Amino acid sequence: MSAKQTKTPLSADVVEAVIDAINFNDQGLVAAIAQQFGSNEILMMAWMSADAIRETLSSGQVCYFSRSRGELWRKGESSGQTQALLDFRWDCDGDTVLLVVDQIGVACHTGRRNCFFNAVRDGEITTIAEVEIEPKKLYGK
Amino acid sequence: MSAKQTKTPLSADVVEAVIDAINFNDQGLVAAIAQQFGSNEILMMAWMSADAIRETLSSGQVCYFSRSRGELWRKGESSGQTQALLDFRWDCDGDTVLLVVDQIGVACHTGRRNCFFNAVRDGEITTIAEVEIEPKKLYGK
Repeated sequence: MSAKQTKTPLSADVVEAVIDAINFNDQGLVAAIAQQFGSNEILMMAWMSADAIRETLSSGQVCYFSRSRGELWRKGESSGQTQALLDFRWDCDGDTVLLVVDQIGVACHTGRRNCFFNAVRDGEITTIAEVEIEPKKLYGK
Repeated sequence: MSAKQTKTPLSADVVEAVIDAINFNDQGLVAAIAQQFGSNEILMMAWMSADAIRETLSSGQVCYFSRSRGELWRKGESSGQTQALLDFRWDCDGDTVLLVVDQIGVACHTGRRNCFFNAVRDGEITTIAEVEIEPKKLYGK
């Protein structure tokens, strides 16, 4: 894929300038949307700390902050479903990051390609995407 | 546009079932991503309260909750840059909503089409999108 626009690793100076531009919330986190390059499919939304951004911009692989575990969450570390960073953007008021990525396999822990599979159809709440990889295969070891 | 998949107005029963499925945060809000139908461009990220969701699913026009003003924010009410709701989805853990919309004009208060115009290019933080409508024209009355 030749679409890489944020060349990693970025220098430490630039990484810190990016972090200065982000408005982290009271918990020191910023919302991060992951979008598949090419199709523009929205894969998931999660949270990043300053250290998660540092790691992402250094390694070129997306790293979030897990609010439930209270630690860095290197996406795909357990499941193999990694996200290679192609572009790192942020919004007008600095409280949301957009990660353009190349997703290996599936983004969702349910084994679906993306997390946004709940919708209303014909007046009923329903699931609009199929499981592509059984969670057992993703996490069963 | 014939892509409308969430037929509004939804019945009150279905609206309340959707709200029951959402995991609102401590402030009673849920993150909401707006995406343009067709291009799949990510326009913006904002927040919705239960009442904002009720209004959106009743009117078919996107209504957020303004954290700064502490009130419902009918997108485009001042600027005319409205978002017609085409599909309402939510994610695996119910803490993010995806609004597929048809955006009139520009989504960003800076007059850019979308809010994610900050990026790193050639080792420098830069702006990657032009202003399409001067903010004065959007808000100056």
